[in-house]
Order: sequence, then C-alpha cells, then structure tokens
Amino acid sequence: MRSDLDRLMHTYNLDAIVVLGDETPNTFRDYLTGRAKANGNIFKKRDEQAVIIVNGMEVDEAAKSGLRVMTYYDFDFAALYEQFGSQPGKLRRELFLNYFRKLDIRGRVGFYGAAAVNGMLPNLLHLIDSNLGVELALEDDTLALFSHMYETKDIAEIAALREAGRLTSEVVRRAWDFLSSHYASDQAIGSPIINEYGEPLTIGAVRRYIQAQETALGLEDSEGFIFAQGRDAGMPHSVGEDSDVLEVGRSIVFDIFPRGGESGYFHDMTRTWCLGRAADDVQAAYDDVMHAFHMVMHAFKVGAPTSQYQVMVLDYFESRGHATQRSKPGTMEGYVHSLGHGIGLNVHEAPMFGEKSTHVLQVGNAFTVEPGLYYPERGYGVRVEDSVYIDEHGVVQRLTDFPYDLVVPLRKR
Amino acid sequence: MRSDLDRLMHTYNLDAIVVLGDETPNTFRDYLTGRAKANGNIFKKRDEQAVIIVNGMEVDEAAKSGLRVMTYYDFDFAALYEQFGSQPGKLRRELFLNYFRKLDIRGRVGFYGAAAVNGMLPNLLHLIDSNLGVELALEDDTLALFSHMYETKDIAEIAALREAGRLTSEVVRRAWDFLSSHYASDQAIGSPIINEYGEPLTIGAVRRYIQAQETALGLEDSEGFIFAQGRDAGMPHSVGEDSDVLEVGRSIVFDIFPRGGESGYFHDMTRTWCLGRAADDVQAAYDDVMHAFHMVMHAFKVGAPTSQYQVMVLDYFESRGHATQRSKPGTMEGYVHSLGHGIGLNVHEAPMFGEKSTHVLQVGNAFTVEPGLYYPERGYGVRVEDSVYIDEHGVVQRLTDFPYDLVVPLRKR
Repeated sequence: MRSDLDRLMHTYNLDAIVVLGDETPNTFRDYLTGRAKANGNIFKKRDEQAVIIVNGMEVDEAAKSGLRVMTYYDFDFAALYEQFGSQPGKLRRELFLNYFRKLDIRGRVGFYGAAAVNGMLPNLLHLIDSNLGVELALEDDTLALFSHMYETKDIAEIAALREAGRLTSEVVRRAWDFLSSHYASDQAIGSPIINEYGEPLTIGAVRRYIQAQETALGLEDSEGFIFAQGRDAGMPHSVGEDSDVLEVGRSIVFDIFPRGGESGYFHDMTRTWCLGRAADDVQAAYDDVMHAFHMVMHAFKVGAPTSQYQVMVLDYFESRGHATQRSKPGTMEGYVHSLGHGIGLNVHEAPMFGEKSTHVLQVGNAFTVEPGLYYPERGYGVRVEDSVYIDEHGVVQRLTDFPYDLVVPLRKR
Repeated sequence: MRSDLDRLMHTYNLDAIVVLGDETPNTFRDYLTGRAKANGNIFKKRDEQAVIIVNGMEVDEAAKSGLRVMTYYDFDFAALYEQFGSQPGKLRRELFLNYFRKLDIRGRVGFYGAAAVNGMLPNLLHLIDSNLGVELALEDDTLALFSHMYETKDIAEIAALREAGRLTSEVVRRAWDFLSSHYASDQAIGSPIINEYGEPLTIGAVRRYIQAQETALGLEDSEGFIFAQGRDAGMPHSVGEDSDVLEVGRSIVFDIFPRGGESGYFHDMTRTWCLGRAADDVQAAYDDVMHAFHMVMHAFKVGAPTSQYQVMVLDYFESRGHATQRSKPGTMEGYVHSLGHGIGLNVHEAPMFGEKSTHVLQVGNAFTVEPGLYYPERGYGVRVEDSVYIDEHGVVQRLTDFPYDLVVPLRKR
C-alpha cells in the first residue's frame, strides 16, 4: 500500500523516483496526489517529501495533494523561455534537466507515470546523455514498485472501493428494473423486446439509461461499459451495438466498470442476463460458469498462489468439454482469459490471476473474480464477475452487491 | 490533417511509425483508429496500411478501426508464454521485439502514443540494445508529426467539433437558466443565493446539475470542468469548491471542456458570470477582457503568425495597467497565460498562441480564444473563451454559440 513507498524504495535500492506526467490521465500521479488536479511531474527522493512541479496557474489545486509544490519559474523558466521560447522541444528538455540539477536527483532512479511518448522520450534520452549522475532503474521481473504498492489496499482505499461497489451495484439494480419494465412481443427466443408503446428496445436506449444512472449516482464512466447481446456477448471485449434491438432469450453480457467521481477508485462487475427466458445452451453455459465462480469463491485462502485458482477453473472447464487458452492456445471459443485482476485506481492492476502469475493472496488484496465462456459462432457468451477484497481476518468480502440471476422477468401484457 | 500522414512521413524522412499504447487513454491511437475500443500498439510503414496488434478478445472492436488487425498469437505469443509466463516483464520485451522482426519495421522510426512509463521504457531500451536496425527518430523542433497533422482539421473533424460546440453551448444555456431560476437573499454584493425554499445554492449543486445535462446530451466530461467563484475564479485552473455558497455580484468563471461521446472531439468555452449584479471591479476587468476578445476576433487573418495575437493582447492589457507574463514573468496577477490553443481529440494541441509560438494561421485550424484577467488577492478573475475554426474561405467561424453577458438576472421574490 501507499505507506510502503519509502520502505519499498529501500528494498528495491532506489535513491529517487520520478513520476512523469502531462495531460494524459495518470494513475501513478493520482495515487501520490490523491487526484489533485495538477498536471506536473513528481520528484521524490527516498525518505524525503515528494515535490510536484506545476504551472503557476495550478498551485492551489496542486497544494491539495499535500506534496511540496514548485512551479516552472523555480527552475529558471523565465530565462529559458527568453532563450528558447520559439523552440518548445529544446525548452522542455532544458527545463527537464534543471529539475534534476536543482532538486539534486541522482543515483538509481525509477521512472513511472504516464505520458505522450514523443514528449517524454526525447527528455529521457537527453537526460541519459547529459551525465547528471542519474542511473535508470528499469522495471523488470525483480522491480515493480507501484505494482507492489497497488497489490494491497489501506483502510481508506477499501472504503473507497466499497462505496464504488455500492453505487455500481445500484446502477445495475436500476438497469435490471428498467429492462424488467418492458415486454416481449412474443415468447419465442429471438422475439424483439418492446416498450409500452410497442416500440423496440435498443441497446442504445439501455446504454443511455445506464449512463444517466451513473451520473446521477456520482460515478464516472471514463472507460465505457459493455452491454453486448448474442454473438457480441460471445466476444469478451465487444462493447455491443447501439442499434441492436434486444431479444427474448439471448445472452446479454453487461460488464460495468465505472469509478467513484470523488475517489477515482474503480468497481468492476459483470452479469449475464436473458430477457424473459433463457435459451437452453445459454443456461447450460451459465450453470458451468456459476459452478466455477462459487468453486473459487469458496477456495480463496490467504497465502495461496493466485495461479492456483486459474488452474482450478481451467481444469473444471476442460472437464466440462470447453476449450481453454491452456488446452488450445489462441482459442476464441471456451474460456479465453484469466480469472481476474486487481482493482484500484486502475481497472486492471496487481494481483493478476493468470496460469503463470506469481502473486500470492494476502490481506488487503482487492480483485475481480470473473469466469466466463464464449461461443461467438453459436451466438452467445456468459460471464459473471464480482469484485472482492480480503479483510484483516483473511476473509473474502464482496464489494459487489447484486444477485447472479440469469433470467430478467418481463412485464405481462 | 489525417490524410497527410504518408506525405508527412516522407517530409520527415520516417520509414515507419509506432504508436505505443496500453490501457492509458491515447489520443494518438484514437486519431488513427477512429476511437475503436482496442488497447493495442500500432505499426505503420510509410505508404503501407497500418497494423494494430491486440488481444484476441478485442479483434471485433479493433476491426472497426479499418486498420489491419493482428493478435499476440501472430507473434509467437504461445511459445513465449510457455517459456516466460512467470516473467511478465521479460515476456513483454520479447513479444515487443517480435513485432519489429515479423513486421520488418526498420530504418528511421518515430515513436508516438501514450503509455505507462515503467512498461514502455524497458521495451524501448531493449529494442535499442537489440540491434534490429531501428533508429529512433526523436521529436524535436524540426520533427512534430502528429502535432503537424492535428494543426488542420478535415471536414469530418470540423463536423464533430461543430456538434460538440452545439451541445456544450446547450449545457451552458441550461446552466444559465438554472442559476437564473434562483433568488438573492439580499441585493448587496456577497449575499447568498437561495432556492425557492430559502436554502443556499452551493457550487456542488450547480456542478451536479451541469454534469446531468452533459450526460443527457451525450457529452463526456472526462476532464471535469471549472466552476469557481471569487478568489478561486482568480486562479485560472482552480476548479471551485463544491461546498461554497454562490453569492450576489462575485465573479464566477465557468470553463467547460467536454467531448462528444461518439466522436471524442472536445469543445472548450468559458463564460464569466455575476449573479444578480456585478461588482464594479469585476465589471471593469470584464470590459477589458471583452475588448481584447473582440479585438483579436476581428484581426485573425490566414497567413499571420499566431504569436502576433498574443502580442496584441499583451500590449493592450499592459496599456490598461495590468501585469502580464511578459512585463512580469511568473506573475499570478493580471494576464497570466497565452491567448489560446488548438482543439481536437486533445483539449490542448497545435496551433499554440504563445508570445514565441511559431504557428501560422491557416484554413482548417480549430482553436480557442480566451483572454483573461486574474486578481486572486482581490477575490476575482475574468475569462471569456470561444472555440472557433477557420473555414475554406479563410473566415473565422465560431464553434461556440452562447452570448457573452456578464450578469445573470435572478428571480424576483
């Protein structure tokens, strides 16, 4: 967690870290600033307070971070602008060097953050060429500083995740009720869903309804969500076609992953729904998915490798005759992804749950559990996903609060 | 514009470009894919079709880009996972090299995109070390490929910008009407604004109302907006405090910059409002800002350097006794920023309007015009901003469609 930063800088032998940033959304910076609205770079020496360097217009917002705030003008910007004002690239590179000189950032330095590549790369290579005594500590399989911190959440983070879960579950509840207020034109599989005026219900209309609920509840839908029917539901990352009319019995994969507008912490949950009734093949796939889901939910145990649960699910689905990425690498039918992923300020972060992931379950983990089966050519897919965390007693607690039911009942005429 | 890509790759002597990407929002990738929901890297050789490499789960969404779609499995992912599955860093680096080998990306290569630094940097330095014949073409003041393309918009982009402008102006109109439906508890400057039940109106309540209008109109508020009163209005990038109660006569800076949910193109506009009446000093600053605004709006001319307009505004404000970043570098009082910036898939892009910017006005430019005056210690700030574009006849056309009035009338009791 965040309070481990200095300790981990010792562990990883880092003299300093730099969190690069521009206008690109930047969860590394958000993690250190508490999402202050400031577009600066952050410099932190081990065991010292971090400094954020911003445009003077942003000092008030940057101060909310609790970091020490400095502006470009503290690094000879006025003289550099006078000299290089018409060469913005050169200006940026020289200003960047001044940060290291003036703050005395040297030794083994880790670079983090998120930024435009064409802006950042010339600065970094210029820094390397300039012999200011900075040695780049590159991330590899033995150095993963932020990922290591992200792996466990502190109490404030768990509270933010719980709130995001509560609100997202409420959005899903309202979406269920909205769908349930509609009619089937006919009970046969594939019949269109209609409203009280007999007009067909499209995915676009449902999407707008859901977006309005997210906004009303203070959730940010920065990444969009998946509301996909039939073949699209069979492609795990297909978002769904707004012009499609919803139909009786088809599988709908509804995967929603907004973040709290205040906190920035994500929730991630998925339900698979059939309107009115379920086609038999969808019901069978759903039963297998729910079996896998409950199996791992009951098996999670602090100290166990995360990969063990992916292997359990691979074994189970293969025993049920489904292809997997293990039995048939590259398959797009059957079980085609990993069991879950950590969740926090990033919608995907440590711990990971792949077959060869090396993470181990521990108190403070927050992660998704999302087995799924996909048959795009047969026109369906099923995924069920909750987000959970491991409390101080080692107990898995659900962050998601909504039933798993497959069939959404429709109104009778 | 986008169709200039191959021509500009010749101009800049680029054999290929690579647009790096992960889950980080990435306007470079959006620009080439039309915002397809696919988290891959893009590789493009000069005069050849671009390739996007994605997770197999994303092929359907990636295909909407019109680019050639390949998956990790086309680059020996299965064998690499078998060998390096428990070393994700090593796995990513080796996979990254395979892209260059298999697609035969060599020669002078430009790197673009946006990504997490700790993921991208090891890959790039590994590539340099691996002698695959890739020479990094670093961006500097003589190479600015995407920025060069962004500088002018094609017809489809102008249409998207117009639509974003129309919808954003409608949000501002609704915000005006909402404020105007409230009462002053008293006519004196500083008296609280109240609703029909006598309850005080807070910035938070206004912010939620505005957010709901954005969502209802299909705008994405990915960057937030500024609704700041009094001293906060005097800090150009202060977003405003939700708990503050709105007051009669104070300056409110309302700067809103959402993007079209479908197109992704931003609009950017600012109005300064006083509720009920305006304090005298705010009115005087507003008059100076509007003079500067109309002065440059009437002076814009294709072929003129953008810096000329910043200089005009600096001259004018200084003649009116205001400090500027030219007369007093680093000042946070007076006129403290540049006159405007290009607008497109990025809220800030070329052309720039600084005193030393080297851009020249041309047909197809789309940009903001936003003079402002800031006096945080005196408790106010004023900024007025429209977005505009230059049409095929060289005429400046407003994308923003809302009056500039300072005083928002309140309801009478």
